[in-house]
Amino acid sequence: MDFSRLCLHTITTKPWAIEEAMDKYAGAGIAGITVWRQWLADRDIAKVGEQLRERNLEIVSLCRGGFFPAKTAKGLEEAIADNRLAIHEAAALGAPMIVLVCGAVPGQPLSESRKQIADGIAAILPLAEEHGIRLAVEPLHPMYADDRSAVNTMASANAICDQLDHPLVGIAADVYHIWWDPDLAEQIRITGEKKRLFAFHVCDWMTPTTDLLNDRGLMGEGCIDVRGIRAMVEATGFTGFNEVEIFSPRWWSKNQDEFLDRIKQAYVEHC
Amino acid sequence: MDFSRLCLHTITTKPWAIEEAMDKYAGAGIAGITVWRQWLADRDIAKVGEQLRERNLEIVSLCRGGFFPAKTAKGLEEAIADNRLAIHEAAALGAPMIVLVCGAVPGQPLSESRKQIADGIAAILPLAEEHGIRLAVEPLHPMYADDRSAVNTMASANAICDQLDHPLVGIAADVYHIWWDPDLAEQIRITGEKKRLFAFHVCDWMTPTTDLLNDRGLMGEGCIDVRGIRAMVEATGFTGFNEVEIFSPRWWSKNQDEFLDRIKQAYVEHC
Repeated sequence: MDFSRLCLHTITTKPWAIEEAMDKYAGAGIAGITVWRQWLADRDIAKVGEQLRERNLEIVSLCRGGFFPAKTAKGLEEAIADNRLAIHEAAALGAPMIVLVCGAVPGQPLSESRKQIADGIAAILPLAEEHGIRLAVEPLHPMYADDRSAVNTMASANAICDQLDHPLVGIAADVYHIWWDPDLAEQIRITGEKKRLFAFHVCDWMTPTTDLLNDRGLMGEGCIDVRGIRAMVEATGFTGFNEVEIFSPRWWSKNQDEFLDRIKQAYVEHC
Repeated sequence: MDFSRLCLHTITTKPWAIEEAMDKYAGAGIAGITVWRQWLADRDIAKVGEQLRERNLEIVSLCRGGFFPAKTAKGLEEAIADNRLAIHEAAALGAPMIVLVCGAVPGQPLSESRKQIADGIAAILPLAEEHGIRLAVEPLHPMYADDRSAVNTMASANAICDQLDHPLVGIAADVYHIWWDPDLAEQIRITGEKKRLFAFHVCDWMTPTTDLLNDRGLMGEGCIDVRGIRAMVEATGFTGFNEVEIFSPRWWSKNQDEFLDRIKQAYVEHC
């Protein structure tokens, strides 16, 4: 049982605060952690980073920046300010990467939102360079195109990366968002060719899905060929973590220690 | 107020049986009707067709065939048999077209399902030819890729049409399923070039969407640029109906006469 490439997002075990999560993950032999920003509220971020390193947890990324599009100049500026704050938080924590959920504004043309996203990333790149923080554009499932992201396919994420053409700008590929895409293999191949596949997230798609946001499954519970997509990802030379990111009141309501065991089991059997 | 290209799907006014729907639609000056097969259960289908024509309602299509993929040979055969039945029903009704919701099987690779879909359509084509019935492949939103359709983009629908290369096989474009697609304009252009855009369905995408199946909005309630997509569609030379297809317990629970008025108003203002 090799858990040296297993990473958990703190949201996956939502009932656990950061202190409990780090002890539990480390105790379970999990190697990596992606910290959601809410878990750092009212904390000394640098100290949390130290505590994670003391437990030999590799800090994979800070989640999340993004939400660049807005209808007003003030809104655009506020988004950029928040993303700069996220970079400072990542630097304080010692996270080498920020996941970007790029954002969308209902009713605004997606092409306009995509332009604002590219402009927003360009605006924060100097600060990202200063701290050496990688920015991972995460394409979101098309069912989030109204208000969460105007970047809904790997092709669209690749296009933004092409446009920005910067070694700190890459892609976070999450099976939940991309599994259905007929063009997936080719687009993943391109991310490898361009050395921009920064992160790989896993979970599963439930049938039926009863909630657009919070009904993700544990790997093996749904219809996604996680192992097949992981093979595509690793064929590009990717050697990073398999990050388990599950939003599920069904799982959050259970005993989280038992859930952690189930995650490890699912990781071995289905990833 | 021109309603000569307005068509309603019987599902849109779900509380009305076919007899009531046809009287109400005709009374409201609506020109077209797409009949869902459930509305024909226990009816003399040829007689319903006559009643619709007596009311000067143009029968736009029969909805729906499809669901070709299956894990067993028996399942595949049953699907083809049901689609042949749909062709007989369309012929009896006097509908010139059947909408195909192509189907998917959770856990089966989408590429395999797409092969079964193409094979299934090929298998029913001789009977479709015999009756002169057009088959409209409807790409479904990627959130239905688990169990409703392995055809989730216009590009994927175009690929199946290319493969079958038959004048009776085309595409039903529904704004709900395709509005988010960065490649939409180009793919619609191709449907025009290949003379395969058979139908155009309208509704809206609600923010938030509270149910994956039954939370469609009336045009103008959500974020879809229906008028912009209609312009793309008509730029191909499409002169068919704008078919209103809304699944919504929220609307079904209201007075359906008032809903019909709201549909006409939304059609004028947002389509």
